[in-house]
Amino acid sequence: MTPFPTLGILGGGQLGKMMALAAARMNVNARFLAPRDAGPMSTFADCTVADWTAAHVLRPFAEGCDAVTVESEWAPAGPMSEVLPDETALWPAPGTVGVIKHKGRQMTRLRKAGLPLPSFRCCRALDEALAAARDLGYPVVLKQYEGSYDGYGNATATGDDELRSAWDDLAADDGLLVENLVSFECELSVLVARRPGGESIVYPVARTVQRDHRCHAVEVPARISGEALNEAKRVGREAVDAVEGVGITAAELFLADDGRILVNELAPRPHNTGHYTIDASRASQFENHVRAVLDWPLGDPSLKAPAAVMVNVLGRRQHTPPDASGLPEALDVPGASVHVYGKPEVRPNRKMGHVTVVGDDLGEARERAGQAAERIRL
Amino acid sequence: MTPFPTLGILGGGQLGKMMALAAARMNVNARFLAPRDAGPMSTFADCTVADWTAAHVLRPFAEGCDAVTVESEWAPAGPMSEVLPDETALWPAPGTVGVIKHKGRQMTRLRKAGLPLPSFRCCRALDEALAAARDLGYPVVLKQYEGSYDGYGNATATGDDELRSAWDDLAADDGLLVENLVSFECELSVLVARRPGGESIVYPVARTVQRDHRCHAVEVPARISGEALNEAKRVGREAVDAVEGVGITAAELFLADDGRILVNELAPRPHNTGHYTIDASRASQFENHVRAVLDWPLGDPSLKAPAAVMVNVLGRRQHTPPDASGLPEALDVPGASVHVYGKPEVRPNRKMGHVTVVGDDLGEARERAGQAAERIRL
Repeated sequence: MTPFPTLGILGGGQLGKMMALAAARMNVNARFLAPRDAGPMSTFADCTVADWTAAHVLRPFAEGCDAVTVESEWAPAGPMSEVLPDETALWPAPGTVGVIKHKGRQMTRLRKAGLPLPSFRCCRALDEALAAARDLGYPVVLKQYEGSYDGYGNATATGDDELRSAWDDLAADDGLLVENLVSFECELSVLVARRPGGESIVYPVARTVQRDHRCHAVEVPARISGEALNEAKRVGREAVDAVEGVGITAAELFLADDGRILVNELAPRPHNTGHYTIDASRASQFENHVRAVLDWPLGDPSLKAPAAVMVNVLGRRQHTPPDASGLPEALDVPGASVHVYGKPEVRPNRKMGHVTVVGDDLGEARERAGQAAERIRL
Repeated sequence: MTPFPTLGILGGGQLGKMMALAAARMNVNARFLAPRDAGPMSTFADCTVADWTAAHVLRPFAEGCDAVTVESEWAPAGPMSEVLPDETALWPAPGTVGVIKHKGRQMTRLRKAGLPLPSFRCCRALDEALAAARDLGYPVVLKQYEGSYDGYGNATATGDDELRSAWDDLAADDGLLVENLVSFECELSVLVARRPGGESIVYPVARTVQRDHRCHAVEVPARISGEALNEAKRVGREAVDAVEGVGITAAELFLADDGRILVNELAPRPHNTGHYTIDASRASQFENHVRAVLDWPLGDPSLKAPAAVMVNVLGRRQHTPPDASGLPEALDVPGASVHVYGKPEVRPNRKMGHVTVVGDDLGEARERAGQAAERIRL
């Protein structure tokens, strides 16, 4: 008799919640460990709140788990690997997480693997950065190696003065990444589910629409040429192979004005740009993450319908609990699938939920998803 | 500020689990009450195991719930209604559950509302039953008023001797229902989601395929004439109106050989024949159940793809815990969405899970769903 497996999740936010919902369908027991009482995980029975960097917490958490996974690159994959029981798998591997979460190491790894990238330099000092920028050609983007996201920890410089000022604001002990600012037609996302042995499946190419440096909407399939679609899938799959991602790894890509597909960055986990898959795909990114980290066969990533659009629901207020009063109005939009994560506190621009509309027409789906997301008003 | 609601579920089996999974997406908190530790609910944080007929258990359970619902017609809706706090709704209403769970009252109510039914008599004694059978014409079906399902509590009689023997086996104090055996082309199912004010939506007509008096597979859309589809939807909606169902009510129907649509029976809850909706519909029966009992706008019941097939996974062994070893093989069938309920003990023919395949072609979906269900071997 083979008992049904237990999956340990380091993290208790919306990604962990959506993993656990997918796991529950298959009778995979989800066990959470988080450093504080995160709202989204509170739906589930098996949650521990404790110092998740401590060996005496990690070890008993992992005992009895068939696999442990991380909800984000900031979860303690390294400390977990040091105390991991022999019979427990840990995916993605700490090496993968370590490469991805440091933008310099990530870009260097991808460049070595021959993947198309914006031109970049890892700069330890201002002088190096000035030389790099002149060499690459302004404008450039300066990025912190760790922790930059959604417009935080980044800056664009169009000349030496702006670069100096950005350096002063952002540079850490190990400097900054200086990267060519890519002039692009659109941003794309490719999700790859990959098993420990290297077998992988690739989701349809999605177009991501940014607002204020944040993912606002995702449209699938991306309306770009067949050639660009194929190249995006190839680049996504090979980038994930290059970092040996296991589970879901997301590749954010540029379709540059010159037609090239370039890797922007990777994330070693289910991704905001893949939330549409819950409602639109034969197997969601969360189900395939669970299947991949348990080394089970991967599910079909294809769409059930011709088109899907996801729109994020961002917080609009400060330090208040979420307000459900807009939810019935949102549900009144035809075809809207409304997801609310259950975070206990609203902050401006915090990801509080999302809406997906699945249909025949991308334009109509976009309009409806936008309308429903607007009505929630968390 | 309106807080997110809490939904009390009387019952802890697979229907409650799937309601709670749908609720969690919308940040509706599910709270379970069950008389024993049912496996499926154990995924969730808020579970009580206690005597669920006792006022001192029911009252505190319902306090703080926005609505309470029942997982089945055998849950204590009546006792709950007696201690229900003023601010808590209870749906479906105990009156609806009471009418549906007694086959004589159910058929009588539907006949009064003018719905097409098999001819039937409520018989208190054997003499009445013999007279009824001769009048209706053999063969007839004898049914216990309460508790008969999946071939239990029912018998077919082709003549007086068989009827006498069936009467001896089955008759309770209040006798039996004697019903014309309908010669039918196929069995159909129509799910209706209905709000307290009477607004309702109707799911596509599904064809149910029985094996050994049990639901084996469900195909959607049913391949019957457009006229029969419309009539099935009309009959389903009006039958649910007649019993004032709130939440999901399932109408099992016959498409008789003479082309008429007849009501076989109703169920006041999400139904096995609607499990396909989780993967195939814009809003699942579980989501619409939650929305309806909270008096929220109802979701779009239409299919995302042209065809869907669900096949049940039934237990094959006796008194053993389920064995996960077949699950990876089942997941290897392209497009198979595998659901395992998490019941702690296998019994022959017990509903342990189901598989849905969504696609373009009913035949291919049926083949794949059957193949995956076969491989699970719980």
